[in-house]
Amino acid sequence: MAKEITSSSNPLIKELVGLKNSKKKKELNRFLIEGEDLIELAYQNNMLDMIVTSIEISLYPSIEIIKVPEFIMEKLSNNKSTSKMIGVAHYDKKELTNDRRVVYLDGVQDPGNVGTIIRTALAFEYDAVILSGDSASKYNEKVIQSSKGAVFSMKVIDDITIEGLKDRGYQIIVTALKNAIDYKDILLKEQFVLVLGNEGQGVKETNLSLADTVVKIDMKNIDSLNVAIAGGILMNFYR
Amino acid sequence: MAKEITSSSNPLIKELVGLKNSKKKKELNRFLIEGEDLIELAYQNNMLDMIVTSIEISLYPSIEIIKVPEFIMEKLSNNKSTSKMIGVAHYDKKELTNDRRVVYLDGVQDPGNVGTIIRTALAFEYDAVILSGDSASKYNEKVIQSSKGAVFSMKVIDDITIEGLKDRGYQIIVTALKNAIDYKDILLKEQFVLVLGNEGQGVKETNLSLADTVVKIDMKNIDSLNVAIAGGILMNFYR
Repeated sequence: MAKEITSSSNPLIKELVGLKNSKKKKELNRFLIEGEDLIELAYQNNMLDMIVTSIEISLYPSIEIIKVPEFIMEKLSNNKSTSKMIGVAHYDKKELTNDRRVVYLDGVQDPGNVGTIIRTALAFEYDAVILSGDSASKYNEKVIQSSKGAVFSMKVIDDITIEGLKDRGYQIIVTALKNAIDYKDILLKEQFVLVLGNEGQGVKETNLSLADTVVKIDMKNIDSLNVAIAGGILMNFYR
Repeated sequence: MAKEITSSSNPLIKELVGLKNSKKKKELNRFLIEGEDLIELAYQNNMLDMIVTSIEISLYPSIEIIKVPEFIMEKLSNNKSTSKMIGVAHYDKKELTNDRRVVYLDGVQDPGNVGTIIRTALAFEYDAVILSGDSASKYNEKVIQSSKGAVFSMKVIDDITIEGLKDRGYQIIVTALKNAIDYKDILLKEQFVLVLGNEGQGVKETNLSLADTVVKIDMKNIDSLNVAIAGGILMNFYR
């Protein structure tokens, strides 16, 4: 049975509107998703807690449905054409276990890049993606969208450092333009982490100094590849 | 000497404001660029015709400078924080000559994808990028931005069909998910074109039927890679 809420001063609606704030999302581990495909993927991954909708829906019988008028949907939606259905979801806590293939994003700030890298990591059977604190967040709606929902099934972790990974015995492979060998010329260890850096500055010096191997992709004419492109080429090769 | 214009009803200013319309840009082969790096690259490629600015500049002595008040800059700028300097540029007509490595975008609609593919093509020494009529245009400011100006030095062409390329003797390599061989298992001819398709629908049937070889990248878990990622992997391999 759907519950009906008609006032935007209702505490639940206020809380959900508050989730437009990125700090709030992180703090509450609760975020909104729009688009049927994303909602379906969140559901499949047991992350969907609630659906807010302005229409009658018969999907997801096990999920709480909140029926609201269109003006509340407008308040909640981030899209120009207001969605008819918005999902409320959470992330489960995920930890690095004995994972073999890991990619670490060191200050990758463009949400489209972060989402695309997560999507690519899933396609190439990486086990985990680690986001540094200054990378775009897994709660960012553009990260979620450009990952095409891969962020729901991929193990995305945000509290491990390169130092921590090195301590666990991971081979640290860092991408950089200088003092680097061709990416094809390395001996891949069983457990490794591929470190991709910020769009402008690259990987931080402190992390670069922890590298076991520094690799580059041979190119001409321009200074650097887009980080998601470089990541795609490297993840495809290091499997 | 800078010329000064103070009224937004001045015919030149009206024409430049009109260039926010994408049809107009194409029709006049004239477009606005913002950002010092892009303006510099347009200049280096002899594409920069004029600079409109609200400040004193001593750069580009050979280029016509139009000095305007800030409110006119606001009218012209596409950025939230209005630029101090906007370039007016054109593309030179470019034609396919005896080019060896060509990438063809068949309905790639996301400007970020098109720009990133052009940037990657330049890095991997491709000779030309061909855009189908339903792909994002080289006049689109997001294409220009995400190409990081590569669109100025790359040969970007928009009036050749796959059929035309086949007639010229190009090997037609098409990416698709079905009935495809692994991309590493092909024999690359001297002159080839790599065809990348629309984000949702892939390469059109009519173009697929003209393929000499259909290739795919081995992946798991998800249906497809982002088209710019697939393009990056393939262009890096087919050089």
